[in-house]
Formats: sequence, structure tokens, C-alpha cells
Amino acid sequence: MTAQAPTRPLGPDAGLDQVFELAQQLRVDSVRASTSAGSGHPTSSLSAADLMAVLMTRHLRYDWDEPGNPANDHLVFSKGHASPLLYAMFRAAGVVGEDELLTTYRRFGARLEGHPTPVLPWVDVATGSLGQGIAYAVGIALAGRDLEASPCRVWVLCGDSEMAEGSVWEAFDKAGRHRLANFIAIVDVNRLGQCGPTELGWDTEAYARRVEAFGCRAITVDGHDLEAVDRALTVAADGQGPTAVVARTVKGRGVSEVADQEGWHGKPLPADLADRAVAGLGGVRHLSVRGPRPPDGAPVPRPAAGPVELPRYELGEAVATRSAFGKALAAVGARPEVVVLDAEVGNSTHTQDFEKAYPERYFQTYIAEQQMIAAAVGMAARGHRPYAATFAAFLTRAHDFIRMAAVSRTTMALCGSHCGVEIGADGPSQMGLEDLAMMRAVHGSTVLYPGDATSATALTAAMADLPGISYLRTTRGAYPVLYAPDEVFPVGGSKTPRRGDQDTVTLVGAGVTLHECLAAADLLAADGIHARVVDLYSVKPVDAGTLARAARETGALVVAEDHHPEGGIGEAVQSALMARRLAPALAHLAVTGLPGSGTTAELLDDAGISRTHIAEAARALIQK
Amino acid sequence: MTAQAPTRPLGPDAGLDQVFELAQQLRVDSVRASTSAGSGHPTSSLSAADLMAVLMTRHLRYDWDEPGNPANDHLVFSKGHASPLLYAMFRAAGVVGEDELLTTYRRFGARLEGHPTPVLPWVDVATGSLGQGIAYAVGIALAGRDLEASPCRVWVLCGDSEMAEGSVWEAFDKAGRHRLANFIAIVDVNRLGQCGPTELGWDTEAYARRVEAFGCRAITVDGHDLEAVDRALTVAADGQGPTAVVARTVKGRGVSEVADQEGWHGKPLPADLADRAVAGLGGVRHLSVRGPRPPDGAPVPRPAAGPVELPRYELGEAVATRSAFGKALAAVGARPEVVVLDAEVGNSTHTQDFEKAYPERYFQTYIAEQQMIAAAVGMAARGHRPYAATFAAFLTRAHDFIRMAAVSRTTMALCGSHCGVEIGADGPSQMGLEDLAMMRAVHGSTVLYPGDATSATALTAAMADLPGISYLRTTRGAYPVLYAPDEVFPVGGSKTPRRGDQDTVTLVGAGVTLHECLAAADLLAADGIHARVVDLYSVKPVDAGTLARAARETGALVVAEDHHPEGGIGEAVQSALMARRLAPALAHLAVTGLPGSGTTAELLDDAGISRTHIAEAARALIQK
Repeated sequence: MTAQAPTRPLGPDAGLDQVFELAQQLRVDSVRASTSAGSGHPTSSLSAADLMAVLMTRHLRYDWDEPGNPANDHLVFSKGHASPLLYAMFRAAGVVGEDELLTTYRRFGARLEGHPTPVLPWVDVATGSLGQGIAYAVGIALAGRDLEASPCRVWVLCGDSEMAEGSVWEAFDKAGRHRLANFIAIVDVNRLGQCGPTELGWDTEAYARRVEAFGCRAITVDGHDLEAVDRALTVAADGQGPTAVVARTVKGRGVSEVADQEGWHGKPLPADLADRAVAGLGGVRHLSVRGPRPPDGAPVPRPAAGPVELPRYELGEAVATRSAFGKALAAVGARPEVVVLDAEVGNSTHTQDFEKAYPERYFQTYIAEQQMIAAAVGMAARGHRPYAATFAAFLTRAHDFIRMAAVSRTTMALCGSHCGVEIGADGPSQMGLEDLAMMRAVHGSTVLYPGDATSATALTAAMADLPGISYLRTTRGAYPVLYAPDEVFPVGGSKTPRRGDQDTVTLVGAGVTLHECLAAADLLAADGIHARVVDLYSVKPVDAGTLARAARETGALVVAEDHHPEGGIGEAVQSALMARRLAPALAHLAVTGLPGSGTTAELLDDAGISRTHIAEAARALIQK
Repeated sequence: MTAQAPTRPLGPDAGLDQVFELAQQLRVDSVRASTSAGSGHPTSSLSAADLMAVLMTRHLRYDWDEPGNPANDHLVFSKGHASPLLYAMFRAAGVVGEDELLTTYRRFGARLEGHPTPVLPWVDVATGSLGQGIAYAVGIALAGRDLEASPCRVWVLCGDSEMAEGSVWEAFDKAGRHRLANFIAIVDVNRLGQCGPTELGWDTEAYARRVEAFGCRAITVDGHDLEAVDRALTVAADGQGPTAVVARTVKGRGVSEVADQEGWHGKPLPADLADRAVAGLGGVRHLSVRGPRPPDGAPVPRPAAGPVELPRYELGEAVATRSAFGKALAAVGARPEVVVLDAEVGNSTHTQDFEKAYPERYFQTYIAEQQMIAAAVGMAARGHRPYAATFAAFLTRAHDFIRMAAVSRTTMALCGSHCGVEIGADGPSQMGLEDLAMMRAVHGSTVLYPGDATSATALTAAMADLPGISYLRTTRGAYPVLYAPDEVFPVGGSKTPRRGDQDTVTLVGAGVTLHECLAAADLLAADGIHARVVDLYSVKPVDAGTLARAARETGALVVAEDHHPEGGIGEAVQSALMARRLAPALAHLAVTGLPGSGTTAELLDDAGISRTHIAEAARALIQK
């Protein structure tokens, strides 16, 4: 393997013979990177090398010196396991060195991770959970076109295995519905998945029919015929899309010993085979590429922010926190970076208040929660601040997307309405009873659960400035406003709406159980028992100081939550206390059974989290 | 409203005029039930009443006296919110009385819940989270045909709004791939969703194109033309499917004041409007229906179970728990009720061992985790015992299906492989770091996390007899076998592989951190510190007794887990101790940062859960 001296970078005018050389370089580098790392996916990289060589030389409008240029195209590797190919492209673009590629890929502390993440400035979203990149791409394309009038296009490389994921079809559906001409999927149909042949094999026409049925244009092509690929990408970028280029390719293409063979998924080539492969591919090359530049022209400036004038509520007024969320959201809309997404339940979550005020920044994703979250992530990648809302129960549908959004370092606000048995007659399918556990375990998340309209308003507004993924849990029914409009609700704080020097027990609640705790305190007061009440509106981070003080001062705690016992408020409280070596008498009331239908009062009582159960638990603790 | 005297039940030979009368009865009863309940979805019921009247009179082969007859057809309401219609059908079938319908629907303690659940003997799976019923139906159809050679067919009523869910297309994809001629979807295209018009409105041809692109047959029909519906259902059941009958309907059909009007989704008719509606529909009727009977003939008996001969491992042998899971699964396959599903990662999860032994009971769902879980639920509904496996990280994709499976009272075993940072170079997208929180919060779940091959084997076998949803977490790398083959591992138990009278600290681990705890105990022993080690292989239920004893006897605990800090082992331990008012010195080591790539040792160390960190934490606790 001898190295040629660097030559003039390949530009859009490069001949296909030069593009072929680039493709071979991408292959060689994919093989070398993964073999050096001892793991990775060379064969899945080799199948797409020709597609990517044509793309980066002639079609991808990208200023490699300025990855933040808002007119840049986007390139999303939905098949994130083909990271050797992506990083080989970065080497060809001159932004990653050969040494970095060969000595740091997949190593500890390196930015060239096993699957791409935005620690790299040229990567917008983390991929590696299949069927997601294409969904993010739809969000990026929507943001670019509809929120910014940007000339950017979004190219997304998909694998064929991931076409079995329903989320892919949610993405094509939305690309088609919104006529996203700036969205181009390239499907690398290499026929082989991890365990053997894919569902549809090389039936590119079957993929094309599906794409077309979902309202997108499909172009089938031989993914190794550079001229045909070039023509296909030219058509795809003609502004008449959305388009999927469905490319028939060979897994392991260019390395005869592995090409189109089963048993080579996710395996680096052994050193001797890698040497033969590199030689067979014509050896190491040092081509560099400068493809088309993004269009010049200043981006459309964002309008100036107006003043955020939050609604104010009268003490005692009965207001649902979901309603307060909607009104606060409409107020926060004065900030032009705020966008809102909903999954066809905006009249339940109350995001419709924002829709009425700012229809141009409201995105109806219909009943497709995965795509809702993915679109939010894509919009966030272009600097917008999304709020996305549905029933708390149905956010579980998007759990994998929320998890991956954390890997993408996404900042977004989520709202889950209709939490807990409180919702009543609709029954368990509609009750969010697992959402706190899900959202607390998301890396870097903030979890908020207001008990009244004032706190819901303040926290909804606060989310617009919180980093990472924040979550607001709202309640279906209307309950009295507890706090005056100017009360502040710091994240990580709590409120103690009832307290006295003689308190012998602390009742900890949030949301509906806060009201039950207050009512229980009344019941206890009638018995001469002084109960403190803590409103734990910030579930993560939790106000450990206040809880510890309550434990020390009252010696007994009842924690009541409208959630299953695991991973929610009770465990947040217990771990906060345990970290301070406090073991007060503690009763943890939560929904342990499987609820049915009923009124709110019946279901709270049946679940053992109503005022009477809270008071009873308090009495039992005190008597011990 | 005057009641007619009951007449002879309508049979398959009933004229369409009689079927029309039945449809009107279903409408009247849908209106009455929801108005009496004060909530529910009458308009979504009215649109499908004609479809269901034709179905139950002429096509649904069902023995209402024997809902357990394995030759019965299945009827799944994927649009579970149309429960008034379903329950009105049950009244027409004579299995639910008028009084029950009108006085218990959506009431506390009633079996006629807001959305159908299997507390009713004629309901196989809980619905209410849209896009799921159709996916379960695929599993039921697969089980009926491929596991039992049953003549049963599966009819599933879908709404048009839910067609936006990707899971619907995973379901059609699998119905098409398996050529499930016993699968018939009826899509009620009533044009209106919760917030307004659906994505595709009345474009039934667009739905048909999608269905056909996914390999199923589509028949479009006017859903209020009884004769046309009858013809369509006749074709659909001709054994040449899978088929979707795409029916254009009118939401609120039959009640002119609400028909095709926005603003009536999920709203009962006010009493006066309900009275006018019932009168306009011709008043209350008391028709009963006995449609076609299921074919006679004894079901094919299940083969006798063979002996389950579990593999045995030598102490000290290095074996990955995922590998032990696969081998145990193949052994458990001697029980003929066991079926296995995987999402195209069977060579990683090791379900391929079962595939080799019992290919006829192995279902490759490709990369479609939602459909994998749904198929498992459907198979369980017909009495099989599914094990479904993929990477722990990717089980989050199916969270909403797992949640709903608990509402369905499903018994199934799940396995999540590749948990935690232990997996190494692939990076965070592939690391299950949220799965314990997710699975602990599932109603009625069991969560198991073996640390060696012997315990993995025993627990894999035990799952075949556990009720509800059980979860086994497996590890990528190979670690020494710690237990002799005859050791027993009761669910809810733990092991204490290291203990002594002078222990001053307890190290609690599971999976990979168990091995780190053992190594840390060695490090501590070198310093003269006696450390107890607890193997918490049963995370839910957790062995509170052993933990409490350890807390009392040693006074200090280090809990180390390869998972985010929330909702996992640490919180399980802390809540167990707190319930006994124990507050030992406790250090909770978990993955708080966002990991990257690296070796297992590097990543465990970086996350602060390696042997050195465990030993350090123990020393710090003791010195306090």
C-alpha cells in the first residue's frame, strides 16, 4: 500500500472515473477503520460507497469549513452502523484525518463513536436505532422549509433492514403529506440483514410501491452504476419530490471474499483479509473532495421575540393543569424559536391554544407519536425549541426516540397529559402510569408535575430555557389554584403549602395527589394531628433538602402518587432520603393494581391514593 | 321508545332488511350506553354499525355459548374507543343484558370498561392505544394457522385515524409476508379524527394502495351499503387474503344532528339529543343474533411435552448470559406451548439456538419490535407461551405494546440483551440503560438479571411458569460461571456468594456488576476489609429480607448497576430498605453520564461502576 500525494480536491465537475476512485477510497477506509478498531460494519459500508461518492462529489451542498451554515444540506445516516463509511467521507472532506480515522474509531474517548452522534459537528442527530434517522430527516426538512425558508435539502441514507420499522412509514407518510421536496431518502438495498436475507431481498420495486403509496416519488437504480446514481440523485434534487432513491446494491461490494455473503454483518475483516481487500480495491488513496457549495444569501432572520405574558389565575379557581399548559404555551409562543407538535389530541392536551395563536409554528403529526418526537428532534437540530405533547400513556410509544434524543443532546420539552387513574372512565389504556419511570430514566432529563394552574404556567414557561429533555406531566381534571400568580417555582424546588411547628407527619404529593394530601391534612387536623404537606412539583431533580428537613422535623412521611410504585415519585423521595441516611417512617402509596373505569374519586380510592388512604397511612405511621 | 318482544335470533340467512334493523339497534344501543355513562364514543360507533351488523350476522363464525372454542373466529376492535358498538354487539349476541349495558358501562367495577379488555370472555386483547389491535390480530392469525392448524379467522376493526401509526404498517407487512389468508382488517374510514379531518380523509383508494403495497389485498366499499359490505366480507373470507376491507363511512351515521360533523369525537349525546337520535333510528329494538357457527372438529392436539434438559456449566467457565439464555431456551422448547420471536438479532440474543431446534415455533419479525411484541401478545391470547427477544435498548421501541400487554393480562417472557455500557464499542445507541426502569414499572412484571450462565439458565426456564410479563436482562460479554448446576434461583430471591461474620460492608450487584463486586471484594480483602457480596438476580420482586439483613449486619451498602440511576436496582434496593426503616450508609453507583465507545473495562470505569469504584465507595462508607 503506497500513498499517492494529495491532489486537487474533487469538485462537482469531477469525472465519474474520479468518483469511482473516491468510492474505492471510501471502501478502503471503511475496511481499514473497522479492522483497526476490531469491530464495526465494513460490509454495510461497502454497499453504499458508490452512492455516497456520487452524493458528496456532485450533489451534497455543504460547506465543510462552516458546518453551522444554515444553507448547508444535511446528511443523516439512518443506517448509523455504516459509520465507517460516514467517517471515511469526513476524511475525504478533509475534516477528519487519516490518523484519527485509523487510530481512534470506536476507541474510548473518541468522537468517532461506533454510531454517529452530534459530538461531531457534521452530524445533526444520533443514529444507531434503526428506522429513526429518516424520521429525524423529515423534521429537519420541515424546519428548513417551513420555519426558515432555507434552501437546505436533507439527504438520508437508509438501510433495507430498517424498512421493516413502522417508523419509516410514518416518516414517508409525513414527507408525502407535507410535499417535502427538500427530502431525499437513499435506500441501500443490499439484500442482507444481520441474520440473513431481508424481508424483501432485492425487490426494489416492492420498496418503490410502498414509497409511492405513501405519497413520495421513488426512483429505482443500480446503486453501483455511478452514472445511473448520478442521474437519480439529480432527479431527486429537482424540487419535485419528496423522493426515495431505491438502490440495488451488494453488501460487501468490492471485496470478493465477502461480497453478497451471509455471516459478515457487523464483522470487521480480519487483518489478512483486510490487506487483500485494500489491495483488491486498488490500495490506499488520498483523494479529497469539495463538492457543491450551499447557495449564498443570508438566512431569513427570525422575528424578534415579543413579551411573554403568562396567564394569571385566581386562588381557588378550578383549572386543569393541561388547560394551564395550553394557555402558557400560547404565551410562550411570543418567543419565535418555540414550535409545537401534537399527535391529533391537541384539544385534549390543549396545545390547540398555541395552534390558534401560531398556526405556522404548529405541526399536526396525527396519531404517529414516534414521528412527532422525531420531528421535534429534527427541528431542535436546526435550533428551534420544540414542545411536543400527547397523552402521557402514548408517549411510551416514542420511548426509543426519546432515549435516542438524549444521545443526540436534544433540547426539547415534552408534555404528557391524562396521567394516572385520575382520568376516570376511559380506563387503563389511556392512563399514564409508567411515564414518570420512563422520563426520569432518560439521560439528563428534567421531570415536572405541577399540581395547580399557577405552577403549571410557570413550569411550562421555564421549560423554554431548560437544557436537555424536559417533561411536564399534566392532569385531566380541574382542581383549585393553590398559588398566587407571582409565586416562583424553581426547577429542583418544592412548595410546602401547609406546615407548622407541631407537624408530626409530612404528606408528599404532586399533581392530583397534592390535592388529596391537602384534603387528608384537613381530615387529620380534625383528629388533632398536624400534617405538613409538600408539593413535589419537581420530580427530577428532586428537592432533597426540603424532604430531609421534613423527615427530620416530622419523623414520618406519606408519599402518594398516581403512578405505578416503581420509578416514580416514591422512589425519587426514598433515594433522596437514603442519600442523607434518613429512614423516617414512610408509607408509599401508589397504583399497585390494574385499574378499570370509574369516577376519579372512585379510582383514586380504589388505588389507595385518595385522601382517606393518605390520612389512614399517616395515622398508622404516627401510632407506630 | 317501546320495546318489541324478542323474536327468533337473526341467523346467517337473515335478510339484509333484518341486518339493517340490527345495525339500527347497534346504533341505538351505542347512543344509549354512552349517554347513560356520560362519556364514550357514540359517533365512532355509529360509523361502523353497518359493517359490524353484516359481520356478526353472516360472517363471524363464533359460538357465543363457548367463547373458548378454539375454532371460533376472533373479533378485535383495534379502534377500542368504539366500545359502545362492541358491547351493543354483545347485547345482540345475548351475552350482555340491556340492563348491564345501560347501567354499568364505564362505571366503577364494571366489566364493560371504557375500552375493551379481556375481563370480558369475548375480548382477546385490550385495545385503546391506537394501531395496536391490528398488530395483535396478526399474532392471533399466525398462531391459529401455523401453530394450531385452526380454521379460525381474525377480523379486526380499525379506525382511519390509527392508520397513521407505523405499527399498522408493520402489521400489514407481516400479514402480507406470511400470506395470512385468515386475517381480515375492516377499516372504518369515517374521515374525522379527534381534532378534525384525518390525514387522508375519504381517500379510500389511498388506503387501498398502501395496503396492497404491503402485500395484502384491498377491497374498497361503501360501508353503509349492506349488500356491498356483505359481498366484500364474503370475498375477504375466501381464503385468498390477507385482506383489508376499506370502507367509506360517515361518522355519526344515522343521527343527522351529528353525522359528519366536527366536534363530536368522544362525546356522548346529551339526553335530549339522544332521545331524538333513538327515535330517529326507529327506537329501541330487541333483536338477537346467532351468526354462523365455527366449523366442527376437534382441534389438533398439542404434542406431548418432552423432558426439559437444561444445559449445565462448569464453575469458572466463561459464558455470556445471552448465550446461556439461548441454550436454555432451546431446552425449554421441549414444552410445545413455547414459541419464540426475535427482531432479526437472533444471532446476538441467541434465540437462534431455539430456531435451530424448533424452526416451526420460531418467528422472525425482522426489525419491527412493536410487531414482535404484538405477535407475542396475540399468540399468548391463544394459549401459547411466547419468549420475545431483542437488544434491551430496542425493547423501548415497544414500550406502549408492553404496557398494553399488561392491560391484556398477557403472560409472556421478554429478554433484552446487550444491556448497559458493558457492550463496549458500539456506543450508547445500542446500550440498554433505561430498560430496568421501563420493565419494573410494568404492571405485574417480574424483572430478572442473572450474573452467570447457571442462573441465566435456571431463570430462563423459570419464566416458562411465571404469570404476567417477565423480563430477563442479559449481558453481551462472557463472564465466569459462579454457581454449580444444581443451585436454585427462586424468583424474589438473591444469592450471597461472599459472606462472613466480620463483614463491614455489603456490595450489591447484578449482571456484570456482580462480577465487579466480587473483584472489588478481593481488592478490599487485600486491605483487610471484609465485604459481603449480594447477587440481586431478582430485581422485581426484590429480596428485601436479605438486603435488610445485610444492612443490619454490615451497616453499609454499595449498590452498583449498569443502568441509569433512576428506576433500576439502586431504587429497588432503597425502597426495600426504606420500607423496613433501614438507612444504612449507602452508595449508589450507576451510569449518570452519556457514554461513548470504548472497551468494557474502560466504560465500566468511566461510568464509575467498576471494581475500583466499588471498592473506593466501600472504603469511603466505612471511614465515615
